[in-house]
Amino acid sequence: MKRSDQLHLGAFIYYAGHHQVGWRHPESRARDLFDFKLYRELAQTAERGKLDMIFFADLLYVQNVGQAAAGMLEPVALLSALSTVTERIGLTATVSTTYNEPYNVARKMATLDFLSEGRAGWNIVTSQLDIEAYNYGRSHHPEHGLRYEMAREFVSAVTSLWDSWQDDALVIDKQAGLFADEAKVKPIDFAGQWYSTRGPLNVPRPPQGYPVLIQAGSSGPGQDFAANYGEVIFTAQQSLEAAQLFYREVHDRLAANGRSPDSLKIMPGLAPIIGDTEEEAWLKYRELEELIPDSVILPGLSQMLNFDLRPYPLDGELPDIPDPVEASNGMKSRVKLVMDMARGEQLSIRQIGRRLIGARGHRQFIGTPEQLADTMEEWFQERACDGFNIMPPVLPVHLNDFVDKVVPILQQRGLFRTEYTGHTLRDHLGLSRPEAGHFRREKEQPVERRA
Amino acid sequence: MKRSDQLHLGAFIYYAGHHQVGWRHPESRARDLFDFKLYRELAQTAERGKLDMIFFADLLYVQNVGQAAAGMLEPVALLSALSTVTERIGLTATVSTTYNEPYNVARKMATLDFLSEGRAGWNIVTSQLDIEAYNYGRSHHPEHGLRYEMAREFVSAVTSLWDSWQDDALVIDKQAGLFADEAKVKPIDFAGQWYSTRGPLNVPRPPQGYPVLIQAGSSGPGQDFAANYGEVIFTAQQSLEAAQLFYREVHDRLAANGRSPDSLKIMPGLAPIIGDTEEEAWLKYRELEELIPDSVILPGLSQMLNFDLRPYPLDGELPDIPDPVEASNGMKSRVKLVMDMARGEQLSIRQIGRRLIGARGHRQFIGTPEQLADTMEEWFQERACDGFNIMPPVLPVHLNDFVDKVVPILQQRGLFRTEYTGHTLRDHLGLSRPEAGHFRREKEQPVERRA
Repeated sequence: MKRSDQLHLGAFIYYAGHHQVGWRHPESRARDLFDFKLYRELAQTAERGKLDMIFFADLLYVQNVGQAAAGMLEPVALLSALSTVTERIGLTATVSTTYNEPYNVARKMATLDFLSEGRAGWNIVTSQLDIEAYNYGRSHHPEHGLRYEMAREFVSAVTSLWDSWQDDALVIDKQAGLFADEAKVKPIDFAGQWYSTRGPLNVPRPPQGYPVLIQAGSSGPGQDFAANYGEVIFTAQQSLEAAQLFYREVHDRLAANGRSPDSLKIMPGLAPIIGDTEEEAWLKYRELEELIPDSVILPGLSQMLNFDLRPYPLDGELPDIPDPVEASNGMKSRVKLVMDMARGEQLSIRQIGRRLIGARGHRQFIGTPEQLADTMEEWFQERACDGFNIMPPVLPVHLNDFVDKVVPILQQRGLFRTEYTGHTLRDHLGLSRPEAGHFRREKEQPVERRA
Repeated sequence: MKRSDQLHLGAFIYYAGHHQVGWRHPESRARDLFDFKLYRELAQTAERGKLDMIFFADLLYVQNVGQAAAGMLEPVALLSALSTVTERIGLTATVSTTYNEPYNVARKMATLDFLSEGRAGWNIVTSQLDIEAYNYGRSHHPEHGLRYEMAREFVSAVTSLWDSWQDDALVIDKQAGLFADEAKVKPIDFAGQWYSTRGPLNVPRPPQGYPVLIQAGSSGPGQDFAANYGEVIFTAQQSLEAAQLFYREVHDRLAANGRSPDSLKIMPGLAPIIGDTEEEAWLKYRELEELIPDSVILPGLSQMLNFDLRPYPLDGELPDIPDPVEASNGMKSRVKLVMDMARGEQLSIRQIGRRLIGARGHRQFIGTPEQLADTMEEWFQERACDGFNIMPPVLPVHLNDFVDKVVPILQQRGLFRTEYTGHTLRDHLGLSRPEAGHFRREKEQPVERRA
């Protein structure tokens, strides 16, 4: 199996940091959450570290604005602005398939790819909550499996729109008066069950062919989706063994789909708190943990698990949470991970709440830069991942720590680039530029011209 | 009637220029239409001229890609990028109400306003053609009157979402753990006939309260809409008299709505071709006109008038075009303007086609910088307008001409600013910052909480 000998790294930007109350940290820039200058600094820091990409979350609601950092600038607009103040780093936006139109998404992601000269990535999500549905005039969020079915069709429509201009369609012969070759700009007549779009798109094929397709679901349907359409999987993995199992399973599905193993990169989330000594790192962690008021633990855990824990005592153990396949409509894989952790380590609700609210279900690391480099190297060498999506608990300080203290160690070990060698996000990730029709499948071929 | 003693000016960016075949001009930058560097240059030129704003068109389709420049970067993403390479100039994006969700538009326009620190404008359009509907899975474009009814509701929803955070809602008290005042971030429970959205929005109230609301329809429903919601009207006016009548009518409607006359700026389009002498200007115009192949005249006019002229001879006169209220679904006011012009000047189809395809129904000016300044001054002093949206026939050359040769004359005459005095687009336009609820009307109040 061909495999890069270097890690891939993303800087995952989320509010004032991934820690639920990270915004309360003295060094957070919570006051600048709606100020471009903060994001310019974060992007330039990540680029200084030669990271593959910065990666913006997106949530289509606000809640609990009293205690939690709330509100996010629209990521495609924000990344478009960041494209002008960076040169090489990839620019990944989370965009929901559930609350958008394929034509609009194809168009804005293509625009980001043009503005950045081939550095765009699309983190494809289906959104999570009923309170998102309400903002779009719907009475409930579609069920998990249905959402993924819809997402497959959505992505098929979007990639077809990106293919609606052939790569060499533009002619621009002023003398002859020929702008584009009409034979190479064609309607796609996409008529699916949920989405229809005739095309052609109103921008040419993007520089990368398609912006890099990134997928964050770890559930069965999520893995299936990724095995079909994903080029990067962002996943939550708590242990080496679980991550190895996930890595093998995804590669099995990939092979079953006839895709080469190097066409998909698996990047678990990792929330590091670094100290010059282990003691210092743990001190930092405890300081942060103490900022979590007891009052947010039950609501926070309830939201993460989509199960109302408010009647339960903080010092008691986590109750059995009903099978989310039947009883709820969100984050199936996360519920399983949390249940396993709580049972395995005999944690109280408060303990599991503090831990999870810190890293939001992702893997938390507390230790020295060397120790972090060690565990990253181990996971990479042991085929648990192709790299990591770094989730700084407090921004910008923990991103600075990672770039300044950990990246140099990874570079010394030959595990990470010391300079960008390519220009596009595909270059950085070692992903080839897709031909037209690359992800299109027989059953999703257009059936007939509408109208 | 209080009225500014200075003009307001926009730079309207459209493909490689507003002239239908302007892209064929030797000095056009048609090859750079999807390259950010072109737009950076255009925006910086307009800012050098101290213009109020740059103004991007948007069309949700491509057609006739062989002979016409086709494809447009998504304007909110593009203007977000431009916000980082400009300091003061307003940034106006055309965004359709027909093919978007209110929550997404409220969010991305608010984001542009944050990124630019208060320089965003929204040119509210309802789109035009059935071929746009097809891209969004619909079988036809909604009828003109219905579209405006929907647009009113859409804008009411969007402004309500912008109001869903009070201006002082953010607290960000790290010590107390209070991010925002929950009493000041509220659902809006907007439940309209076509659009529903619960809110609150996922970004705070924008720096300008609302991005400036700009409206481009000149028809009856368009004027009504503008008198309710518009703060700038971009209109097509061919003669001083027609423009004065329009100006009076709009102000009458404004007064009937209880709005002050200085709360709405009327900016007709103006497509200038400038020469050091009149002869040079006309020579430039003829050169451009000759680039129009006969073959595009009938299709071009047919599209502009939404009436199939292909069976008619180019040298014959324009046939009677059926009343678009009954027979067609687009550009009602434009059809009337064109019919009046053709009848008044006894123009052949070729003649009217060449003229209109040049300026696309807007007013074309051919002459010296002094002459252009004269006519702009006359229109302004005679209360035909509050300024102009400049539509350069070929970009960037005709924008450069305007900024370098005409703006200084307007400045010498005291008709235009020599330096920006404010920082936001509202400052430039002399528009006040709206209080929450500014444009909300009784009948469009939310009726009940859904879900």
